[in-house]
Amino acid sequence: MAAQSQDFSSQSSATATYPVAHPLCPLTAAEISTTADLVRSVWPAGVDLRFKVVTLDEPAKKLMVPYLEAEHSGAPLPSIPRKAFVSYYIRNTDRFHEAVVNLSSRSVESNVRLGPNQHGNGDYDEILQVEKNALEDEKVKEALKKLQLPEGTVVCADPWIYGSDGVNDDERMYQVFLYMRDPNNPSELDSNHYAFPLPISPVLDCNEYKVIRIDYLPTGADNTVHEPALPWQPAPSNEYVHEYQTLRTDLKPLNVIQPEGASFTLTPTGETGHLLAWQKWTFRVGYNQREGMVLYDVRYAGRPLFYRLSLSDMNIPYADPRHPFHKKSAYDLGDAGAGAMANNLKLGCDCLGHIQYLSAVITDDKGVPTPLENCVCVHEQDGGIGWKHTNYRTGRAAVVRNRELVLQSIITVSNYEYILAFMFNQAGELIYEVRATGVLSTQPIDHELDKVGVPFGTVVHPGVLAAHHQHIFSLRVDPMLEGHANRLVYDEAHAIPVTPDWNPHGVGYEVAETVVARAGGLDLDVDANRTFKIQNAGVRNPVNGKPVAYKIHAPPFQKMLAHPDSFHFKRAEFADHNIYVTTHADRELYAGGWYTNQSRGGTGVRSWAARQDSVVDTDIVVWIQFGINHVPRIEDFPVMPCEILKVSLKPVNFFDRNPALDVPPSEQVFNKSTLVAEAHRQPTQELVVGKATAGDCCAPAAADSKSKL
Amino acid sequence: MAAQSQDFSSQSSATATYPVAHPLCPLTAAEISTTADLVRSVWPAGVDLRFKVVTLDEPAKKLMVPYLEAEHSGAPLPSIPRKAFVSYYIRNTDRFHEAVVNLSSRSVESNVRLGPNQHGNGDYDEILQVEKNALEDEKVKEALKKLQLPEGTVVCADPWIYGSDGVNDDERMYQVFLYMRDPNNPSELDSNHYAFPLPISPVLDCNEYKVIRIDYLPTGADNTVHEPALPWQPAPSNEYVHEYQTLRTDLKPLNVIQPEGASFTLTPTGETGHLLAWQKWTFRVGYNQREGMVLYDVRYAGRPLFYRLSLSDMNIPYADPRHPFHKKSAYDLGDAGAGAMANNLKLGCDCLGHIQYLSAVITDDKGVPTPLENCVCVHEQDGGIGWKHTNYRTGRAAVVRNRELVLQSIITVSNYEYILAFMFNQAGELIYEVRATGVLSTQPIDHELDKVGVPFGTVVHPGVLAAHHQHIFSLRVDPMLEGHANRLVYDEAHAIPVTPDWNPHGVGYEVAETVVARAGGLDLDVDANRTFKIQNAGVRNPVNGKPVAYKIHAPPFQKMLAHPDSFHFKRAEFADHNIYVTTHADRELYAGGWYTNQSRGGTGVRSWAARQDSVVDTDIVVWIQFGINHVPRIEDFPVMPCEILKVSLKPVNFFDRNPALDVPPSEQVFNKSTLVAEAHRQPTQELVVGKATAGDCCAPAAADSKSKL
Repeated sequence: MAAQSQDFSSQSSATATYPVAHPLCPLTAAEISTTADLVRSVWPAGVDLRFKVVTLDEPAKKLMVPYLEAEHSGAPLPSIPRKAFVSYYIRNTDRFHEAVVNLSSRSVESNVRLGPNQHGNGDYDEILQVEKNALEDEKVKEALKKLQLPEGTVVCADPWIYGSDGVNDDERMYQVFLYMRDPNNPSELDSNHYAFPLPISPVLDCNEYKVIRIDYLPTGADNTVHEPALPWQPAPSNEYVHEYQTLRTDLKPLNVIQPEGASFTLTPTGETGHLLAWQKWTFRVGYNQREGMVLYDVRYAGRPLFYRLSLSDMNIPYADPRHPFHKKSAYDLGDAGAGAMANNLKLGCDCLGHIQYLSAVITDDKGVPTPLENCVCVHEQDGGIGWKHTNYRTGRAAVVRNRELVLQSIITVSNYEYILAFMFNQAGELIYEVRATGVLSTQPIDHELDKVGVPFGTVVHPGVLAAHHQHIFSLRVDPMLEGHANRLVYDEAHAIPVTPDWNPHGVGYEVAETVVARAGGLDLDVDANRTFKIQNAGVRNPVNGKPVAYKIHAPPFQKMLAHPDSFHFKRAEFADHNIYVTTHADRELYAGGWYTNQSRGGTGVRSWAARQDSVVDTDIVVWIQFGINHVPRIEDFPVMPCEILKVSLKPVNFFDRNPALDVPPSEQVFNKSTLVAEAHRQPTQELVVGKATAGDCCAPAAADSKSKL
Repeated sequence: MAAQSQDFSSQSSATATYPVAHPLCPLTAAEISTTADLVRSVWPAGVDLRFKVVTLDEPAKKLMVPYLEAEHSGAPLPSIPRKAFVSYYIRNTDRFHEAVVNLSSRSVESNVRLGPNQHGNGDYDEILQVEKNALEDEKVKEALKKLQLPEGTVVCADPWIYGSDGVNDDERMYQVFLYMRDPNNPSELDSNHYAFPLPISPVLDCNEYKVIRIDYLPTGADNTVHEPALPWQPAPSNEYVHEYQTLRTDLKPLNVIQPEGASFTLTPTGETGHLLAWQKWTFRVGYNQREGMVLYDVRYAGRPLFYRLSLSDMNIPYADPRHPFHKKSAYDLGDAGAGAMANNLKLGCDCLGHIQYLSAVITDDKGVPTPLENCVCVHEQDGGIGWKHTNYRTGRAAVVRNRELVLQSIITVSNYEYILAFMFNQAGELIYEVRATGVLSTQPIDHELDKVGVPFGTVVHPGVLAAHHQHIFSLRVDPMLEGHANRLVYDEAHAIPVTPDWNPHGVGYEVAETVVARAGGLDLDVDANRTFKIQNAGVRNPVNGKPVAYKIHAPPFQKMLAHPDSFHFKRAEFADHNIYVTTHADRELYAGGWYTNQSRGGTGVRSWAARQDSVVDTDIVVWIQFGINHVPRIEDFPVMPCEILKVSLKPVNFFDRNPALDVPPSEQVFNKSTLVAEAHRQPTQELVVGKATAGDCCAPAAADSKSKL
């Protein structure tokens, strides 16, 4: 444990040729610039590159494991070359490359052009250009004119990743959905244009970003499209920004105060690294363009738990079967980047309490380092009671609260928001939480269908359809429970057969464990209480002899509904099973494959699992899928109340008792709660609540017989 | 809405003969005394009664509905007779009765002796007597002597409801499990005796509370019992109270401060009633011996939602098939009473923040009113972000937090604790949360099995087995969505068949609704995304024409594992389906039947559903089951970290947009968050976080291009 509060940056001199604070630190701004320069240097002068990703090329695990061992044991640190991963286009062409740059040796180690159907993610400048070009296109203007929109109307363009349907879609393109601001208030920059979807959708190429086609949208219950589209019909607005609401006036402030500061220690490592220590947990916080937060080397009380944790992928396929909606299937991490899309979090708005913000740096399309300020907030929260027991004989209650550490990042993907958080508690549990919020992706529907509807969506506003869609997430868990030789098992509970000698009353049941032998996809089975556990069979609990383990609590969900032959299904290689397990390979990081934009499938966790490697007592990776089928309610518009999903990893026979037993008692002297004063109640009533103030729940007390049984 | 903040107690004069603040107020202390007196008056002098329950006999719904309508419209209030429900024994006999007392007319309306296999719940004084008699019994002392326990050992007795197996169990009995305090520290009153289970179990009758049998417990892997039991073998202690721990010293205080007070208004109604108003919600809080908290007349913005809400039942069947463990199947509400067992909550220990406590009064076994002080706490909590959207074009974020109102009650049932809470949010959602904590019910296991184990339990300490067990809860929801003619429907999502003309790409899916026609039990189907909704088909959403509805989010769980022919299965009439729906009947309140102690089944929701009443557009009751199969971890001992279960009821097309849109923005001026100061970080590092302080998330801002996409 001595190493936990140490600043490892002082050890950077151990890497001979290149000063690196820690091999897992994200690239610094200087490293991004150097990387871009080195990649440019392999091309003739004048060749303009459009950078998509410049990020840390994480050291091979076979190098990192000895490094971490040395680091934790205080041994001399091995030298690990510092490398950057790059993907880029020759600007204004479809020539897409990936490169690995060795920053230690200042050399480009590899630089390859990628084959057909591998496309780069969208980037911010590109999105702006697509919007601009779509709206300035003369054919689009002509088509809009036929809608007879009110004088002064402002049209907005939402570029969408084109998607895949195998129909003339080998080239990288954008599908742009058009909306308008409230025509009665067109100067409102924050008008909710999703309440005014238009039936015209330009398609742009990605070499010159020119409109190559205009799609007309079906707006009825079938495939019928009107070309030109029918004239626009007036409809009311539906704004979400606060000044258009009659706000509630009866909500009183609730402040979280930590008078002695935070309980965590965040130690910067170099310019970009962070070592976090909190309540026996230690880990490193990384950050990249694609996954956003990445946690490394997660330990509890010094015992190794997880080598690497991140949200690996997400897919949002839509239910509308009609062209061009049938291609809507977003991969927000691979298509755009959870890291790149992170909000700049604001004090007092996005987190409550005593907050520490982390910032990061990524590249822009020109290879220029671009800061992402306050893209992660770190804070503690009260998670309610942690454990309690009252001895009814003495009346004494022992109770502790469940303090949680939260690392939160919020991403905006055009219309939609995800609030992503890693949470830790004092009982050795790690939680990944997703809150889905933001604005539904909308499309026009004929007004005569407003109160009739269609079975693949919900009318959320007059003339506005929100199609059903699935959100399917994949959490990548690279475990190292007491070492790197781990296995995946599952428990099931089954009734014991009834015989005259054993279980004659038919009440007994037993739990049996199955070892997963080969890589593959596996499913939950609620009726068998099937519970997956990551185990180290070589390390046994000292009391009961069971292998040390962490179990996976993930809510079951409806798997992808798209047909197994569809591109939706083929591309989302993680969307068909609750759990995947594979052997570890360094470049197998993203469950839907490295390049998701207009992808074809054939790369991703389903393909890796098809190797059917033995996964028993070896270096495994566990992929946990979870999600929701979002059948919109009208209450989800114009901005939806958060829908919360949680995955948790809980110790099972890893400790020898409740690891939160040593949490200090929940006491008034510490918590400083207050009683609702008489002034807030009816003045004429006698207060019974006042009697409680003298009590102390945590000191031995006389038997309090009447309230206990 | 004007009625919401009104104190209805002023209207009590409208009931002609008897002053009642409101017909749904729990019985007052005086009413309990009067009821007991009236029941005693029908018996000859000298007949001693043992009261089990004296509680409000809730008015028939056909009387209450017009009353509530009058109350909310300001019309004259109808008069409703005030009645009490009583169950009692002729003391020291098996003669069990129930009575209804009309307090308005001061008469005993009915008084009937109940037939065989109907037994009363345990009560506190009885439990103490059973403990005492078990330990003072000479045969028990003799049996204990043969264990050769260390000098000075203190033995503890945990009385258990006897259970049902059909073997000479028509009479009411107690099964007592014996434990000892840490023999090295026998004077510690709060020693965790569950770490020292003993292999002897006395059985007592309930007329004289005498030991009628001593059971010897199997302690191996099979049915073998040792009689006399083998001598005790030394084992270590495993204490949970704080002074035996080396407490963490690095947890800093976290205080919740509400400088302007609470946002709710709690209006007392008479001595025992409470009308709560918070963020457009209004409801009455009742309380009784069995269910604890009961909510009545729940409305949002004046619109009726739920007539009555309560936890109706819970069952905890155990997995060990061996005598006498095969009878372990607790019904904590019917066997003892969630109301009766509620903890006296202490300020600053059980709830954080600005707290209001409610107290209640129940009867003791002599018909004497007994206060339950601070048995419910009411407070607000921050539930994280409620909704957020950032306009990536302007960089403006609109964000609100999700404030929640919590009504919490904590019950101790011998070894175990449940933290039960109703929670409300600002988006029209109502949540019922159960946190399971406390001490596992333990039994002895031979030390040679410590590291081998048995398949029906987990060794949680040397010589200590915690058998697997299920927790199955039933939440009773009596809806009145915009009136009392409601229906239950379910949605399913299914892939659209692939044809050349419709869904040719195989991506589409649609949602179809099925109306539940007849009373019965229904199940979730995750693979179909089956979602149950309570609807009022006669009231349509003004925008999309859908029936107003609330949907049920309940986690799927493994249904009861016991054989359908077993008593465990027959008694737990709710444990075999996720959802039951029945027509309303006044006395059908408890899913496992009125008298659960040594019950036989044949009464409860499965039996009521068997009437197969039409449940379409009528007065229905929906029973939501949820639970866990608790396969103990060693981390669950000596006190388990809370396991959290949530059921939520969410509006679906009930409002015409997000009902939380009018929540004031989450702003620093309101939230007063603080930055982690430089002093808490490495002093040599430059702070990037300081840059955040100037920002205001909620005011329009210039485009913040680099952090958005």
